[in-house]
Amino acid sequence: MQNIKIAYLGGGSKAWARVFMYDLALAADLGGEIALYDIDRMAALRNRAIGERINDHPQTVSRWEYTVPETLDEALLGADFVVISILPGTFEAMRSDVHEPEAFGIWQPVGDTVGPGGVLRAMRTVPIFAGFAEAIRRVCPKAWVINLTNPMAACVKTLYSVFPGIKAFGCCHEVFHAQEWLCAVIHEMTGLPRPNRQEIRTDVSGVNHFTWITKARFQSLDVLSLLPGFLDRFYESGYSEYKETDAWKRDLFRCGNKVKGDLFRRYGVLPAAGDRHLAEFFPNKWYCGPEEVVHQWQYSLTSVDYRIEDARKKVSEAVDMAEGKIPIPLRKSAEEVVDLMQALLGRTEIVSNANLPNNGQMTAFPHGTVVETNCVFSHDAVKPLRAYGLPGPVRGLVYGIAQNTDDLVEAILRKDLHATETVFLQQPSCSGLSLSEGRQLFARMCRRTRDLLETHFDLSVLDRDNSGSK
Amino acid sequence: MQNIKIAYLGGGSKAWARVFMYDLALAADLGGEIALYDIDRMAALRNRAIGERINDHPQTVSRWEYTVPETLDEALLGADFVVISILPGTFEAMRSDVHEPEAFGIWQPVGDTVGPGGVLRAMRTVPIFAGFAEAIRRVCPKAWVINLTNPMAACVKTLYSVFPGIKAFGCCHEVFHAQEWLCAVIHEMTGLPRPNRQEIRTDVSGVNHFTWITKARFQSLDVLSLLPGFLDRFYESGYSEYKETDAWKRDLFRCGNKVKGDLFRRYGVLPAAGDRHLAEFFPNKWYCGPEEVVHQWQYSLTSVDYRIEDARKKVSEAVDMAEGKIPIPLRKSAEEVVDLMQALLGRTEIVSNANLPNNGQMTAFPHGTVVETNCVFSHDAVKPLRAYGLPGPVRGLVYGIAQNTDDLVEAILRKDLHATETVFLQQPSCSGLSLSEGRQLFARMCRRTRDLLETHFDLSVLDRDNSGSK
Amino acid sequence: MQNIKIAYLGGGSKAWARVFMYDLALAADLGGEIALYDIDRMAALRNRAIGERINDHPQTVSRWEYTVPETLDEALLGADFVVISILPGTFEAMRSDVHEPEAFGIWQPVGDTVGPGGVLRAMRTVPIFAGFAEAIRRVCPKAWVINLTNPMAACVKTLYSVFPGIKAFGCCHEVFHAQEWLCAVIHEMTGLPRPNRQEIRTDVSGVNHFTWITKARFQSLDVLSLLPGFLDRFYESGYSEYKETDAWKRDLFRCGNKVKGDLFRRYGVLPAAGDRHLAEFFPNKWYCGPEEVVHQWQYSLTSVDYRIEDARKKVSEAVDMAEGKIPIPLRKSAEEVVDLMQALLGRTEIVSNANLPNNGQMTAFPHGTVVETNCVFSHDAVKPLRAYGLPGPVRGLVYGIAQNTDDLVEAILRKDLHATETVFLQQPSCSGLSLSEGRQLFARMCRRTRDLLETHFDLSVLDRDNSGSK
Amino acid sequence: MQNIKIAYLGGGSKAWARVFMYDLALAADLGGEIALYDIDRMAALRNRAIGERINDHPQTVSRWEYTVPETLDEALLGADFVVISILPGTFEAMRSDVHEPEAFGIWQPVGDTVGPGGVLRAMRTVPIFAGFAEAIRRVCPKAWVINLTNPMAACVKTLYSVFPGIKAFGCCHEVFHAQEWLCAVIHEMTGLPRPNRQEIRTDVSGVNHFTWITKARFQSLDVLSLLPGFLDRFYESGYSEYKETDAWKRDLFRCGNKVKGDLFRRYGVLPAAGDRHLAEFFPNKWYCGPEEVVHQWQYSLTSVDYRIEDARKKVSEAVDMAEGKIPIPLRKSAEEVVDLMQALLGRTEIVSNANLPNNGQMTAFPHGTVVETNCVFSHDAVKPLRAYGLPGPVRGLVYGIAQNTDDLVEAILRKDLHATETVFLQQPSCSGLSLSEGRQLFARMCRRTRDLLETHFDLSVLDRDNSGSK
Repeated sequence: MQNIKIAYLGGGSKAWARVFMYDLALAADLGGEIALYDIDRMAALRNRAIGERINDHPQTVSRWEYTVPETLDEALLGADFVVISILPGTFEAMRSDVHEPEAFGIWQPVGDTVGPGGVLRAMRTVPIFAGFAEAIRRVCPKAWVINLTNPMAACVKTLYSVFPGIKAFGCCHEVFHAQEWLCAVIHEMTGLPRPNRQEIRTDVSGVNHFTWITKARFQSLDVLSLLPGFLDRFYESGYSEYKETDAWKRDLFRCGNKVKGDLFRRYGVLPAAGDRHLAEFFPNKWYCGPEEVVHQWQYSLTSVDYRIEDARKKVSEAVDMAEGKIPIPLRKSAEEVVDLMQALLGRTEIVSNANLPNNGQMTAFPHGTVVETNCVFSHDAVKPLRAYGLPGPVRGLVYGIAQNTDDLVEAILRKDLHATETVFLQQPSCSGLSLSEGRQLFARMCRRTRDLLETHFDLSVLDRDNSGSK
Repeated sequence: MQNIKIAYLGGGSKAWARVFMYDLALAADLGGEIALYDIDRMAALRNRAIGERINDHPQTVSRWEYTVPETLDEALLGADFVVISILPGTFEAMRSDVHEPEAFGIWQPVGDTVGPGGVLRAMRTVPIFAGFAEAIRRVCPKAWVINLTNPMAACVKTLYSVFPGIKAFGCCHEVFHAQEWLCAVIHEMTGLPRPNRQEIRTDVSGVNHFTWITKARFQSLDVLSLLPGFLDRFYESGYSEYKETDAWKRDLFRCGNKVKGDLFRRYGVLPAAGDRHLAEFFPNKWYCGPEEVVHQWQYSLTSVDYRIEDARKKVSEAVDMAEGKIPIPLRKSAEEVVDLMQALLGRTEIVSNANLPNNGQMTAFPHGTVVETNCVFSHDAVKPLRAYGLPGPVRGLVYGIAQNTDDLVEAILRKDLHATETVFLQQPSCSGLSLSEGRQLFARMCRRTRDLLETHFDLSVLDRDNSGSK
Repeated sequence: MQNIKIAYLGGGSKAWARVFMYDLALAADLGGEIALYDIDRMAALRNRAIGERINDHPQTVSRWEYTVPETLDEALLGADFVVISILPGTFEAMRSDVHEPEAFGIWQPVGDTVGPGGVLRAMRTVPIFAGFAEAIRRVCPKAWVINLTNPMAACVKTLYSVFPGIKAFGCCHEVFHAQEWLCAVIHEMTGLPRPNRQEIRTDVSGVNHFTWITKARFQSLDVLSLLPGFLDRFYESGYSEYKETDAWKRDLFRCGNKVKGDLFRRYGVLPAAGDRHLAEFFPNKWYCGPEEVVHQWQYSLTSVDYRIEDARKKVSEAVDMAEGKIPIPLRKSAEEVVDLMQALLGRTEIVSNANLPNNGQMTAFPHGTVVETNCVFSHDAVKPLRAYGLPGPVRGLVYGIAQNTDDLVEAILRKDLHATETVFLQQPSCSGLSLSEGRQLFARMCRRTRDLLETHFDLSVLDRDNSGSK
Repeated sequence: MQNIKIAYLGGGSKAWARVFMYDLALAADLGGEIALYDIDRMAALRNRAIGERINDHPQTVSRWEYTVPETLDEALLGADFVVISILPGTFEAMRSDVHEPEAFGIWQPVGDTVGPGGVLRAMRTVPIFAGFAEAIRRVCPKAWVINLTNPMAACVKTLYSVFPGIKAFGCCHEVFHAQEWLCAVIHEMTGLPRPNRQEIRTDVSGVNHFTWITKARFQSLDVLSLLPGFLDRFYESGYSEYKETDAWKRDLFRCGNKVKGDLFRRYGVLPAAGDRHLAEFFPNKWYCGPEEVVHQWQYSLTSVDYRIEDARKKVSEAVDMAEGKIPIPLRKSAEEVVDLMQALLGRTEIVSNANLPNNGQMTAFPHGTVVETNCVFSHDAVKPLRAYGLPGPVRGLVYGIAQNTDDLVEAILRKDLHATETVFLQQPSCSGLSLSEGRQLFARMCRRTRDLLETHFDLSVLDRDNSGSK
């Protein structure tokens, strides 16, 4: 058994921390300390209590000491791994991110990656990640840093911008859903039993939430070649990877994959993320709109009210679990983070997708921009694999998104509100606005979340007459 | 004196051919044959008559034989240079290009480069240029080919796609206007006498009509550094490089450079083309709109009615000139084509901007995409200079345009209407449309110019129910 | 079980064919046809008889039909895999390759990769591989082609030069020996039980037989970091990965790894091939010389007399085996070819080293030059991994070798004897010769193997006075 | 007239300083201060006296104040240009560089660029240039730095390694001689009057003193195409660009260009440096040897005794000139440094060759290695032009030299004697030595110049038993 220390930033996490603790509890060859660090210290303590109950679970095969350090530096001290899974800002800020643009005709199904919401969220998150990067450089420069926070690409870019020698990458499970969907497609089109997701080998290329599957194989079967025929049957009706095809009506995180199908028809490669994410990367009128519009595309908007209610439930469940009122549902999750950690410790060699600065894996893209491709994880190394090229029109779209992210991070790190606004105006979902509308919306969203921004930015410029673009 | 043959494709050109013939008449060390080839043979014959009058002009120092070959191959046979300056299609087609999108709220000041008009014009032009490239490969593969036709980048890309060994480049004088404007800026801000355009050394980077000046020097003066102060004074009022600042009200090709100034303020580098071109590279609501809107930006829309009237006048003038009713106004023009030809013949070495496939001159851009940068012209060689990088947000925009052009040319050469539509939908000026609006507009514009398109494309798909995007 | 066809070029192979047939016999999920093609048809028939005996072996789990086609095209028809393992030319030619240069003071331990022998061997082999590539393009362009023949890099380069769309790579097991040696080092320096070779994960970078291990790990142990201490103890005495440290005295293919140790001391990275190969990549006086010299470096020269005797023994053994006089020693070998084939069929995903044209895996090297690095083998794909960079002085040496190979293949394909001579003169082992000595040696070796060369080259130039270098 | 300050490091220069002062005196639009800095302060004062006499010369059109600062920082303070032309070390050190290797059979015609002499000279020079770079960063980071000192590439590499933001390049006139020779070739082969050197436009590619002309034009004439016929006539007899073809017998700096001709025959491109330089880039036995051998190649060895005597004469002449005993022979030289300075000041735009870190001008070479190619000099910018590729075998040779230089500079800056020895052993002229001979020679040369080296290196290792290579 190898003794390691994991610093978990956002250790009060309402859901993901538990999944992670379960997976670690079931990793026979690991053990050591998990430092749960959170600015919501009570939440971290609650997760510690859950961790201790997991330690006592009969199926647990590894042993972890759960600590709740008071400072970031203390959490990082001696860490072999740093896992970052935070919620930057408040639900009220998120409400502004998601709903404020609706007054300008911009509807955002998620609002955490790109578009007005993605930009504002980055304005809150990038300064926090800059602080993380500095602390990691100072305290544990050799640790592996695994980011799970959105906006993923901006977070990873920030880490590398501030500390170029960092060993960091970002993990996202959106690709897994597309793999599940392809399993269903295989079954539907060939009559074979539905495979497991892990049996689908995909080549991916793009940026987080806008990653494209350029090749998918099940054994020697070319899975993408099934899609034209599949779409002849299911383009109109939609098709869910879950049994109930209208599941999206009840579960906001599900969809009928109609956007995905429409994009595959147009571009010939398959976008890997859920439809609600995909819709945000295009002009707003393509796939977004109020509920009645997006329902035609068979997905739902994720309102912030829903998120608040959902969070309340999860906290309540966590309290019950911490207090032993409900049992620990210990089982291996579908997440891969613990597997990747084992590969980094030299146990195995794994090919999976990750977000990393471009170092040749996507040849048409700038060096250093954060992209999501397959990588080989092995002892103390994550090596990106050269991805297959994207079709031209997709490449153009992805490049624009990647460039925006680089520019956004740079502008925020420079505390340059004017340059941040420039990136805001260039968001695909803002492309129906006039210049003055775009600038008004930006100013309004900044003012609405002023408390969270003005520790970093000088917002006084917003109060001046703003008639020129200077 | 060196004896050369120039094949002039579009040799019936109403205006540019005369300028070219004047410049050649004044090039002491050149002489030979100018083959004027045009599908409008009468126009070519008229230009021949003008050429012969130029030969007789007392100030003429070189002697040219003007021929009007009947076939393209005959024109190209033995050519040392091929100059291409054609008008693809009819004014009625151009009317559709420019005005049809107005019904969808899209206003195009020019409509010949990007946007709906640019795409449809490319659909007519690319097949013609493919024919030129094949003929050049067959008949005069070593000739230098100079393109002056729009859409510039698509034309040059087509030449290289069809005949990769071609020695072709594209020339555009839009940068000259920006240089003139900078001369006025220098005078305004320093009190120095206004320099000549040739004294302004600019580094340019971008794609045709969306080329950006990243550095401009007059002797050791950094000219761009004058612009922030200049714009403090003239951002609102606008500023023309011509004496009369409201010249744009009378001359459609002039402008108050307010778009240029706004873009410099946002991006920190100076776009080189006229404002009417620049406006088309952004979401339509930024700088475009009906007359009353664009007048606020101090430029005018170029209606096709105006173009028809203008063409009529020029033909009438040409007829008079050919018949000797009016004198030949022989003088060296501001154009550089003849200078570049002399450099290619080994006379001089010149640094100027040209459109060429990217071979490292713009490092963040794909190999082979047609870009406009400075080049060194010398004996039998055009060598692009590594351009300074563009600021991130500009790079993202330019990349998208460059990628669209590559995709468009490829789609047209494959005769793939579906892929052409995909590029159409991704035009910046279409970004306010829904998917179905975009597809309707594309279909309508194709139908409107059906006669010119159906020799190349199978348009029957347009007649089918078009509800799915397949 | 998947039904496949394997075309085995060099199917009369005396040793390797048997190993391959054993491994295939033990691959439960495969089966089909193995077409043994050889210009020595009798040898192929003998191997077929052995194959049929293997089919009857009680431990055999897969079934193969062995055929002996009369023509290359027949062998290739319908092939899923093409395995190439030939001996180009005769032992007499090899005698010239290896021993002729001794008169000029050049001693070659192997003489099949670089140096005078490598060049002459390439002159015989490249035209044969050009023929293979053309036949593969014509008959089975989608087959995976696995080369095992030396000179490895020149063979693979030829395949891609003649048929750029070929799916070919080269396999070599020299790296395995270095891994074995590192296993012994681990045991010696840490006291841990000696690991299996497969547990050592190495990053390799270079060209075949001159591949360098830049990182080696056993679990989380950095194996290269053990070497300085290890060499403090064993630099002088040498150290074999086999039990008997003086095994090299009895087995020509073994060595004391003193060259390897000396190179690690100088360069800080570990060359992966056997010492007899390594010695040939440096100025001849560094590690080569007559027996008494190389014995100080603890390896032996591989004389051609030895090879002839060895071949005789193997043939005799094969005859006995084919006739059933001796039993079939069926067991899984240490080779990986069958594993790689299974990965290419979609069964698994494997990381291993292979020889492929550079496509970014070695960034400082020209695109298209054949290099040996780690690759990911998966369904219908071999993707090279970006290798770690080599230390400068090693990079310079490897680059020179890689460039020589590219130039050599190009010169031979052009049938250009003068250009071939130029590459010959630039071999590291020729660097002690004067220009005229080098040219004499080249001419002499060409004349000595004239029969095998003059089907491809015009050798008449050798008969002329050769005093100028023209 | 523009007022500038030039810091001249090595301002006591015996010959080159005068040439530079003449050219500046004749540059009408320049003037200001020339700070002559030299550790031989008396020599600098002598040059100041000469400078003042030049100021008084009737043909002088510009006015310069000559100063002799006491410290480097004082010299650099306020400098617009820094010109570096120093002689690192003593003639006795140079005697060791050039002649010590003769005992090992290595003959060096110059011994200042590559080979044993080049390495030892770099060991003395690189630390001095590291000091220059640090001072420039501290005192005048925006100055343009023009290096004229050998080993050129190592000097320029050092400047950029220590101060990556430096604006430095290296100038060498060897290419001019090849241009002169080509002028003679044109006259000989076409009967045209011999052109001026400036009329020959060459494309060059390589590293300093090993630069290759890949294209040469006189107007529209392809000059290299004349060489095969020319060499049919003059390969054996040799051919000098000077009138007297046996001038090399009397003037050590002249040659019969037989090495050049032999290399053109072998490689098809023309090396640009003098034969004495070229010979040092190949295995020593190719073109080097004692006097009787090199005379067959029609050049002479440059003995250090000759250099000492030559220096003595020049000093004597300078004294006479300073004291007014002999007149000032004021005329414009063939050097280009002042022209390049004028271009950098924004006066003109010039295409010429220069030594700069590779930034894409030589695509097959590593980024940052110092290469010599054509560049465009304009206001405050030197932009390298993408060079034509070199033939494979030349590329391999040049790459090795370039890599050696990078490794050498890095090793010296790290004060790593072992790594320096590694580069020494890999010199082409050392390729006939055994490992132990090479190491002995290196140690001997280090000991011989110990006084000059031990301020930088720890040489005590040389005194230990040196039997292992560690």
